[in-house]
Amino acid sequence: MRKQFFFVLTFVGLLSGSAFTQQMPFGGADIKSPEIHADQTVTFRFLAPDAKEVKISGEWIPAKGLLPGSVALTKGDKGIWSYTTGVLEPELYSYSFTVDGLKVTDPNNPFLFRDVATVTNVFIVGGGQANLYEINAVPHGTVSRRWYESPGLGKTRRLTIYTPPGYESSKQKFPVLYLLHGSGGDEEAWIAQGRVAQIADNLIVQGKAKPMIIVMPNGNVDQDAAPGEGKDGFYKPTFMLPSTMNGQYIKTFMDIVKFVESNYRVEDNMANRAIAGLSMGGFHSMNISRYYPGTFDYVGLFSAALMSETSKQRGWKLYEADESTLVQQKDNGYKLYWIGIGKEDFLYQNNLEYAAKLDSIGMKYEFVETEGGHVWKNWRVYLTEFMPLLFN
Amino acid sequence: MRKQFFFVLTFVGLLSGSAFTQQMPFGGADIKSPEIHADQTVTFRFLAPDAKEVKISGEWIPAKGLLPGSVALTKGDKGIWSYTTGVLEPELYSYSFTVDGLKVTDPNNPFLFRDVATVTNVFIVGGGQANLYEINAVPHGTVSRRWYESPGLGKTRRLTIYTPPGYESSKQKFPVLYLLHGSGGDEEAWIAQGRVAQIADNLIVQGKAKPMIIVMPNGNVDQDAAPGEGKDGFYKPTFMLPSTMNGQYIKTFMDIVKFVESNYRVEDNMANRAIAGLSMGGFHSMNISRYYPGTFDYVGLFSAALMSETSKQRGWKLYEADESTLVQQKDNGYKLYWIGIGKEDFLYQNNLEYAAKLDSIGMKYEFVETEGGHVWKNWRVYLTEFMPLLFN
Repeated sequence: MRKQFFFVLTFVGLLSGSAFTQQMPFGGADIKSPEIHADQTVTFRFLAPDAKEVKISGEWIPAKGLLPGSVALTKGDKGIWSYTTGVLEPELYSYSFTVDGLKVTDPNNPFLFRDVATVTNVFIVGGGQANLYEINAVPHGTVSRRWYESPGLGKTRRLTIYTPPGYESSKQKFPVLYLLHGSGGDEEAWIAQGRVAQIADNLIVQGKAKPMIIVMPNGNVDQDAAPGEGKDGFYKPTFMLPSTMNGQYIKTFMDIVKFVESNYRVEDNMANRAIAGLSMGGFHSMNISRYYPGTFDYVGLFSAALMSETSKQRGWKLYEADESTLVQQKDNGYKLYWIGIGKEDFLYQNNLEYAAKLDSIGMKYEFVETEGGHVWKNWRVYLTEFMPLLFN
Repeated sequence: MRKQFFFVLTFVGLLSGSAFTQQMPFGGADIKSPEIHADQTVTFRFLAPDAKEVKISGEWIPAKGLLPGSVALTKGDKGIWSYTTGVLEPELYSYSFTVDGLKVTDPNNPFLFRDVATVTNVFIVGGGQANLYEINAVPHGTVSRRWYESPGLGKTRRLTIYTPPGYESSKQKFPVLYLLHGSGGDEEAWIAQGRVAQIADNLIVQGKAKPMIIVMPNGNVDQDAAPGEGKDGFYKPTFMLPSTMNGQYIKTFMDIVKFVESNYRVEDNMANRAIAGLSMGGFHSMNISRYYPGTFDYVGLFSAALMSETSKQRGWKLYEADESTLVQQKDNGYKLYWIGIGKEDFLYQNNLEYAAKLDSIGMKYEFVETEGGHVWKNWRVYLTEFMPLLFN
């Protein structure tokens, strides 16, 4: 170790490029943040010798009305502020600091998620449900970013695709889950915040989900790819793009299905196709599954924005025939129509109304009501509950 | 537009979850940063009404000795500080702000690169050489993160692999470039900071490089994957891991080659294999190519850490026979041995000495001397110069 240490110092001592000096973890205080303790408490630390106030906002801190809640850190030795949480339940959490009114990320934690234009740090308190979000020593699927032609949109577009462990070396055909993001998201959302690769690897190895391909397309038809990944280069993303809910995505969705079924070893029939999505992706999944009856045997609506009235008011003609197409979907048959919604979700009432509508036409569904609101925590849970029900 | 705006407001008005309110781009000042102007100047803006001083550090600002240089922003209306650069040459740049002594990222730019444990914002001034780093409307290859078995290391490990446009639909066999990262890097380094997918897409469509597969493995044998992507979960990365240069990677490198050649449609012969790397990856490429003579017809050493004397002093036995194995590599023949080094690189002298050693044994090479130091700017340029020389 000593030898190695001297070697590193020698190597570092030779460095002159600014790229290197900027990147060096040496020289500053050796701060660990977050530090996740065995008892599921977490300590955060932040070096700010001249600051008057350092606060932290995070998903475990109760919100103050519409604003995120925060807790103050305490100033200690050498200008290092710190704060230790109570016991946190196993979960993936995001957080950020506010230093004298300035919202900043944690310089000691290089793990970040982008949500629309906002970047926050993340950490995992392991065990329990969060064990499904961790990278365990199990067989891993492959995650690819690939481009496909959409003749309907006249564009080459990017998607993310998970193929299960053993896909490449087997001759088996696999079922496919199409998994759709929410407003402001893109083909990076589910694989990042949704921990899809980890959830799938873990559920598959535990025998709780069938090995399946998971396709995560981009539902913003104005984009060819996620911000920073397409021809528009780096730009500041906005919450919603103009054509995202006007029906174009639904009308052209079979471009994606055709691409997948002609490029991957898949079972290309209704019994082996599932579609699910969160929020706007639930809206898309509801509409795509009724617009193409006989295509998907499994439908998952996670905190879905089931805004058929709004759609009609907007004059989006595609959505006008929703009741008759739902009846058609019902008559055509399917295996599972799964609705998950949190009781604090702003779409809770909307989902209750939708369920009543399904009742009124005699369309069967499973309705799973959970705690919590319109948050990734719920969408990850819904995915872990939905996947085991597929392709049985 | 008005309708859409009202719709978004309605939607937003309904939001209650903190995840949503946190992510909303509404409510704050609508700040654009960086703003890249047509004349290749760039304006940065930072909202900090209560700050006394806001500075920016970036790769275009001359360093102060070993420390990065910085420029002060000017405070303007509504607490927004700003600064406009002079004309910048086309390039990918990284930068960060310092607000009253606190180093922070740009909250209006969600595009970031991680380099070891440090995260900085990035932007591109387009055109010229930087056109190769941009995502253009050209056919795109596929980028996959895949896991392979390394019997030599007794581990399942992760790598990044680029397959060229048309790979999946063709029956052609392709040549392979193995592209190795530097110290502190991992299988994410070249695809992120190195812009490998963009460079390859662009060079291939322009006919300047042959369609090829590019394999970006992880050279830190103690890791199964990049920090945050492997079984160790999220942790603070350090500059160098203990076993990274002790020979284990070299001794087990053929595990990677065998995996690639049995899982991809490749030409599995010397004429269709290239190996190149930056800094420590140059050290690895030099050693792997001599350790397996007859395997690689093309070798690229980019700002290579050619530390054979240091290796011997460390007692790393693998490296003791370097001269005899180089002679063997020479006698065995190869098509290209390419060395690129910046005149300000701390390894410049080291590379000159290595070239002299090659001269002394009559081993041919190309020596490309550039401006600049040990920085990604040079490694991207070297890659764009090296790729067109391959597989001809």
